[in-house]
Amino acid sequence: MPMDAPTDANAEIEVTGYDWVPPFARGQVRDLRVRWALEEIGQPYRTRLISARERPDWYYKEQPFGQVPTYREGDLLLFECAAIALHIAEKDERLLPRSGPARSRALTWLFCAMNSIDPYVMNQVTCELFARDDEWATLRRPMQTEMMERRLRQLGDALGDKDWLDGAFSVADILMVATLRTLANTSIVLPDGLAAYVARGEARPAFQRALAAQLADFIPDPEGVPA
Amino acid sequence: MPMDAPTDANAEIEVTGYDWVPPFARGQVRDLRVRWALEEIGQPYRTRLISARERPDWYYKEQPFGQVPTYREGDLLLFECAAIALHIAEKDERLLPRSGPARSRALTWLFCAMNSIDPYVMNQVTCELFARDDEWATLRRPMQTEMMERRLRQLGDALGDKDWLDGAFSVADILMVATLRTLANTSIVLPDGLAAYVARGEARPAFQRALAAQLADFIPDPEGVPA
Repeated sequence: MPMDAPTDANAEIEVTGYDWVPPFARGQVRDLRVRWALEEIGQPYRTRLISARERPDWYYKEQPFGQVPTYREGDLLLFECAAIALHIAEKDERLLPRSGPARSRALTWLFCAMNSIDPYVMNQVTCELFARDDEWATLRRPMQTEMMERRLRQLGDALGDKDWLDGAFSVADILMVATLRTLANTSIVLPDGLAAYVARGEARPAFQRALAAQLADFIPDPEGVPA
Repeated sequence: MPMDAPTDANAEIEVTGYDWVPPFARGQVRDLRVRWALEEIGQPYRTRLISARERPDWYYKEQPFGQVPTYREGDLLLFECAAIALHIAEKDERLLPRSGPARSRALTWLFCAMNSIDPYVMNQVTCELFARDDEWATLRRPMQTEMMERRLRQLGDALGDKDWLDGAFSVADILMVATLRTLANTSIVLPDGLAAYVARGEARPAFQRALAAQLADFIPDPEGVPA
């Protein structure tokens, strides 16, 4: 593949993303997490792009909530970025030990990212971005921020001085780094240990390729949409 | 085991729960999900109970956020109810196909429960219960309820006329039923298909045993705490 075409139109694996999102969301859409997992194991993929502003009716048959990503591999159709990342991780033990305690612990961290951290991050982003002009969000924000900061301190304590959540890099780190970096759009300052952890994730060549590929897939700003 | 002692003090597997919660939370604490998975495969377990009102400092070394459940099996210590349920499901294909597309689809539904449904449920419960006296929650509740109801309609459409999310019962149904039944404490009325789905889950003998075991573990109301 030439460097300017990070995806491969002839690949068997298909990932669905959006054809355009506002600037603040670029590099944050959840197909990034799937692209990153695929890049870590050198697995080529093609993309199918849908409109986030006018999601096609047929798409809800593939993804109940109309969101991206979905993942197609032959007859298999999956959704939920973490489930897809886990499916990819099963292909290569660099992303997930095949058995034993280290595998179960990696899955613990994967669910920790998706159920104990990501919902707090989404609420923070809602308060500070999506609903920032709403009175409820103004009233909610101090307590939301306090809960988010406490949870990040606790996560930072659990990470300690390890490079990755369970020592060795795994699919759980892809999901955790991806959700933590969403906070870059908010007032939250990551504790030092977590900031370094996110930086380690973002420095990985596979992350860089995945990010470039997502950004390259967006079409130019449509007319009438503020850039 | 006698019927009035649903747990087994000599079992190798240990599940941590709370020794007391307010009445509205009884039968809803997340160790129920782990107990249910264990009951489905006939795996005995013992419980270790901690105080939810004064969580011991040492417990944060085992669970970064001080929450239950944790799970101990020999040297293995896990947290995150869905990760524990998945670990248990790996022991028995009645809870998770060992390989192939059905396995990957079950994992999709498991993450759907934990990342696409549970965060909405938790926000609904926060608006209607934990923060019901806060002005922000009053202002937020109409839109939160609208989003919750739309998501439930979409989930109901995806379930269709199937008994379980992917046809055959799996660990994903344990987590999905468990999160949906939390809404019983709110104003949300489940669409008919989902209400029947939750009722099917709650009718399973393993669920009934898990529920009885959680309820049996709570100590009487402490003095000074309103019942």
